[in-house]
Amino acid sequence: MNPNTENFSIAPIGYVQSPYKQKFGVPRQPGLASQTMSCIELLPEFSADCVRGLSEFDYIWVHFVFHKVLTEGWQPLVRPPKLGGKKKVGVFATRSPHRPNHLGLSLLPLVHIDTQQGVKIWVRGGDFIDGTPIIDIKPYLAFIESQAHARSGFARLDTPILTVVWHEQAQQAIHTLRLPEDFVVLIKESIRHDPRPAHQHDEPRRFVMQLAWQGSDYDVVFSVNIQAACVENVLIHTGLKLL
Amino acid sequence: MNPNTENFSIAPIGYVQSPYKQKFGVPRQPGLASQTMSCIELLPEFSADCVRGLSEFDYIWVHFVFHKVLTEGWQPLVRPPKLGGKKKVGVFATRSPHRPNHLGLSLLPLVHIDTQQGVKIWVRGGDFIDGTPIIDIKPYLAFIESQAHARSGFARLDTPILTVVWHEQAQQAIHTLRLPEDFVVLIKESIRHDPRPAHQHDEPRRFVMQLAWQGSDYDVVFSVNIQAACVENVLIHTGLKLL
Repeated sequence: MNPNTENFSIAPIGYVQSPYKQKFGVPRQPGLASQTMSCIELLPEFSADCVRGLSEFDYIWVHFVFHKVLTEGWQPLVRPPKLGGKKKVGVFATRSPHRPNHLGLSLLPLVHIDTQQGVKIWVRGGDFIDGTPIIDIKPYLAFIESQAHARSGFARLDTPILTVVWHEQAQQAIHTLRLPEDFVVLIKESIRHDPRPAHQHDEPRRFVMQLAWQGSDYDVVFSVNIQAACVENVLIHTGLKLL
Repeated sequence: MNPNTENFSIAPIGYVQSPYKQKFGVPRQPGLASQTMSCIELLPEFSADCVRGLSEFDYIWVHFVFHKVLTEGWQPLVRPPKLGGKKKVGVFATRSPHRPNHLGLSLLPLVHIDTQQGVKIWVRGGDFIDGTPIIDIKPYLAFIESQAHARSGFARLDTPILTVVWHEQAQQAIHTLRLPEDFVVLIKESIRHDPRPAHQHDEPRRFVMQLAWQGSDYDVVFSVNIQAACVENVLIHTGLKLL
């Protein structure tokens, strides 16, 4: 019908600062780690004028690019973690990052907008990797976009939540590294929804999740045993492969 | 924080077929003209596999590009029609098409997916111009994205709905041109939410809205008088400036 299949050039309007330094551990949905605050820092060409009135909205839509998987392309069929990684569904029936154009969309509670020095937008529960390029921000229109009774296909299934226990060594690390309470909660929230890839659920092994907090990078070492996860240790991130 | 302000190249995944041939008359929000069916036709490289499972969702997110205003750029402050075109708010606090990257997002009821010959996705109440490039489709996740009690700022204000009356000449045209009932409803729905630009509300003049229906283009001539709109005539579209 339309022969003009020209491409569009999309420029970031800002970047996210978040505790998640790598894909592994990033919540699969916004809101799963509700203690996590992310900060969207707009680029200097976007002045305080651009966000005037935005704080009258409780929620904002954040459009972003799954920049870490750009080179990985996409597949017509994907195996959503919600379906145990077994059943395949069409990529447009999922929120998978491995999609044409690699566009992400998250609805997030707006916490605070700081326009003192550039524009910083604080949101709660972001499912972004640190450095994620943001390409648009829009207000949430509850009277149109809240459709409580809409069928949501397979996505409705609840994922089991793991009990998170702390190994003695990890408890010691909280003390020695003086990890603040908020960061301890973030670790717990990041692990209880089981960040392991579905195909590795049967492997009895340790996993390492890299998290950042107030300028420091940490390696969180954990294992999962049926319905419980054990935080085995928390270490200052060295960049070395641990296990 | 992030110096790599590289751009992203976004390719259409398909195009919309809709009755709206020009910006004027396109509903300002999805759902305002609920009789309007739009069809998203995916490009041939997107097979039926890509939408497998999507019909289990009642609503879909449609990401699109406001392609008709790409050359018009954007402004930090805009005057939303909801505020009578007087008060200015920041572009990111609105759904204005004149925004950085010109990205649109609409939540639409999914009516039907036809995979007989290419993939055609039928949605209800689309606020698209005919030929709009679609860049992503995602399922609506009610358990996350339905936030009924979220404050929605100024957007909450209700716009008055106009009574639509039909001039004798227009009634005659319905008969002569054999306009089907669905199309008559579409005309009414397109006019009752007052498509006039806010700054032209005080001008006593005629407006012409171009609408297409089943392969034919029509010019709908109407005027607005306080709280009533009068459809003055419906003509086969000629491409000539009427008034």
